[in-house]
Amino acid sequence: MSEASVRDHKILLTEDEMPTRWYNVLRDLPTPPPPVLHPGTGQPVGPEDLAPLFPMDLIAQEVSSEQYVDIPDEVLDVYRLWRPSPLYRAHRLERALDTPARIYYKYEGVSPAGSHKPNTAVPQAYYNKIAGIKKLATETGAGQWGTALAFACSQFGLECEVWQVRASYDQKPYRRIMIETFGGTVHPSPSDLTNAGRAILAEHPDSTGSLGIAISEAVEVAAGDPTTNYALGSVLNHVLMHQTIIGEEALLQLAKVGEQADLLVGCTGGGSNFGGLMFPFLREKWAGRMSPTVRAVEPAACPSLTQGRYAYDFGDTAGMTPLIKMHTLGHDFVPDPIHAGGLRYHGMSPLISHLYEEGEIEAVAKPQSECFKAGVLFARSEGIVPAPEPTHALAAAVEEALRCKESGEEKVILTALCGHGHLDLAAYGDYLAGSIVDSDWGDAEHQAALAAALDKLPAFA
Amino acid sequence: MSEASVRDHKILLTEDEMPTRWYNVLRDLPTPPPPVLHPGTGQPVGPEDLAPLFPMDLIAQEVSSEQYVDIPDEVLDVYRLWRPSPLYRAHRLERALDTPARIYYKYEGVSPAGSHKPNTAVPQAYYNKIAGIKKLATETGAGQWGTALAFACSQFGLECEVWQVRASYDQKPYRRIMIETFGGTVHPSPSDLTNAGRAILAEHPDSTGSLGIAISEAVEVAAGDPTTNYALGSVLNHVLMHQTIIGEEALLQLAKVGEQADLLVGCTGGGSNFGGLMFPFLREKWAGRMSPTVRAVEPAACPSLTQGRYAYDFGDTAGMTPLIKMHTLGHDFVPDPIHAGGLRYHGMSPLISHLYEEGEIEAVAKPQSECFKAGVLFARSEGIVPAPEPTHALAAAVEEALRCKESGEEKVILTALCGHGHLDLAAYGDYLAGSIVDSDWGDAEHQAALAAALDKLPAFA
Repeated sequence: MSEASVRDHKILLTEDEMPTRWYNVLRDLPTPPPPVLHPGTGQPVGPEDLAPLFPMDLIAQEVSSEQYVDIPDEVLDVYRLWRPSPLYRAHRLERALDTPARIYYKYEGVSPAGSHKPNTAVPQAYYNKIAGIKKLATETGAGQWGTALAFACSQFGLECEVWQVRASYDQKPYRRIMIETFGGTVHPSPSDLTNAGRAILAEHPDSTGSLGIAISEAVEVAAGDPTTNYALGSVLNHVLMHQTIIGEEALLQLAKVGEQADLLVGCTGGGSNFGGLMFPFLREKWAGRMSPTVRAVEPAACPSLTQGRYAYDFGDTAGMTPLIKMHTLGHDFVPDPIHAGGLRYHGMSPLISHLYEEGEIEAVAKPQSECFKAGVLFARSEGIVPAPEPTHALAAAVEEALRCKESGEEKVILTALCGHGHLDLAAYGDYLAGSIVDSDWGDAEHQAALAAALDKLPAFA
Repeated sequence: MSEASVRDHKILLTEDEMPTRWYNVLRDLPTPPPPVLHPGTGQPVGPEDLAPLFPMDLIAQEVSSEQYVDIPDEVLDVYRLWRPSPLYRAHRLERALDTPARIYYKYEGVSPAGSHKPNTAVPQAYYNKIAGIKKLATETGAGQWGTALAFACSQFGLECEVWQVRASYDQKPYRRIMIETFGGTVHPSPSDLTNAGRAILAEHPDSTGSLGIAISEAVEVAAGDPTTNYALGSVLNHVLMHQTIIGEEALLQLAKVGEQADLLVGCTGGGSNFGGLMFPFLREKWAGRMSPTVRAVEPAACPSLTQGRYAYDFGDTAGMTPLIKMHTLGHDFVPDPIHAGGLRYHGMSPLISHLYEEGEIEAVAKPQSECFKAGVLFARSEGIVPAPEPTHALAAAVEEALRCKESGEEKVILTALCGHGHLDLAAYGDYLAGSIVDSDWGDAEHQAALAAALDKLPAFA
């Protein structure tokens, strides 16, 4: 094949050019992040605390001090189904905006689940498989993570059992069916299969569930069976590390067309898509090889970086996890029901939180109406209907591109398009019908809810 | 980029390698196909008969005797958004089947609409645009064609007005929303916007519509407004010609890995996906450069090639179109409501029909349960949930691969995967729940319905 040219829309890598190592940002951080604490003792957790839920290879990756971790051949072989993922030059979006900026997007919607989630689901299934585990249990909200894990389990002959928040289970059957098509089993949560679920149902027989309850159910099943483990789709260090293949590829792809990114934008929920794209670029920045601005875009309805507190908090709603130092709105804060369900998390990956605290990354919050507007413009110009989550990054990219139109700057903007919106079209229907509501974070009600939630942060905060 | 290797899953072309001409099979047919006739006179139709609906460039392509037609730069530039489309080697499906066959699939699900339809929607929009047309009107059943045309119109600043069969409009809102996201307008059909629609509604206020009625409405609107034209998504010669970019790319891609296809399989509804892949391979066969078997796979519920009559018939249900010599079940035959809505057409492209009659291609019919079984196997091994339509081709590919397992033959099988099933997951839900019903074509009821429909073929039959 000939090299990509500047006229091209697609900047592709061959499978031989696919990166073979994940990048471990932990090793290069300017300062070390605070440890994860045991909620009972207040002492740093050790591998033995995590062993009932995770295989030792993943526990080791969680605290690794190596700069790179080799990707196992068996994982690379599954990655080949969709990786390297394409980098696209958004010529038509640029034209629609009449901007001198050059906009690129790294597209993860080509994966089996339609998002970046399989990048970590596949290695998690693999490491569990070689540890002798037979089944993975997990929770899912809208269903992206459950889909990714079911696909990954199908590749390694593992069973996959998913507790899906009842409200999503009932209202969005397509994701459930996709999980089942990949061979997974889905239970609405709360279920009568666990003590946690039965306790909720005894008190609230009509409970529509929550991510916190679903986590409790999956963790209970995993902890109670030595051949079943638990898998998490974001937040943790090893999850973000698996996602760095996104950024490593993007570096190679931009180099192919002789470009250096001036601005990187990505949406942040738990932080794994954002970290996956950004960490390799931060490494290059710290090494003095480039100096991009790195900007996180969070939903205005759930602004953990821009409005939350940097404090120790639980990762789940029910308060069962270890304590993590992170930007948080409080573990029992309930965000407004926006369409970008994947960004509706009270906390933020500790690695992203730490980098934000250190001034290595910026953050902005966007109301969803602005995001859908950018999503529709993107669909009509580039031909891809984005998931609601990455429309947040697109809104920030559009904002910057319009600034460039004013200033005449030819900035290179790279945005993370972490998934397609084929299973989120109902949200576009609401937007086109004019029935999208934005959260007003400045009002007394939201401020009171935040204050109340922050008041309930655990003692170590 | 380095060349693709045999280990690779993906066989990609750069944008510079994208074919720049469509192939016109009409020029190379061993014998000429029968002309299209005017239903009133019984004489061949001329350009002037088609001019109220189509721009002259497309009418010329319909009867062109050139072997190739150059693809306009403006069309190539839109094609770049997703073309060249990938060819994949199905290593994991082969392993799941334990077959010595080598299976390749050409994937059109990467397009903006998620199917092959934009390959012709884009040039149709372009030629209408340069002819001064402001709006395209069309019909859509499940919504694939409407989505493709809405996207194409968004690229050239045309309005797009779609009449969608009421039953689909009500039951499958995601496709409607996708059309609207691309900027199109959707009306449920029958509508009160046309004489045809009002006449139906007067008699049947609760009509759930049909493709035939929707065609009538779109054609009426196009015929009544000099700045509005009509667009058709399959069957016609120019539509199939636009789709030949699929086969031209696949030829280049197989050559990259040094393979020659022994068997090509594709599903057939109107015939455009099938013709698009097959015609360039047939050219190579006629030139003595290869000798593949070419097999059409139709749904057992709508077997126009294997059970229909080769006769002059109307293209639409209402009997408004010119008369086309084709394999047909009769224009008012109503197929059982299978999930592969795109294959539920009473007739067949005249080019495909002619080739079948000449013995250039084979045909088999598959019941949908066998097709969904292949689709689920494919999803779990290759990570793509296929649309119900191409599961027909997959079922035939699986059948052949299992034959190869018996015989030990290392056949090269190439199958057309013409779209993803993200908006068809309800069908997979039915299959996984065991509620899929197969048509029994051999029973008296179906045979009587066919006989009755064939009795109503027009006089020229």
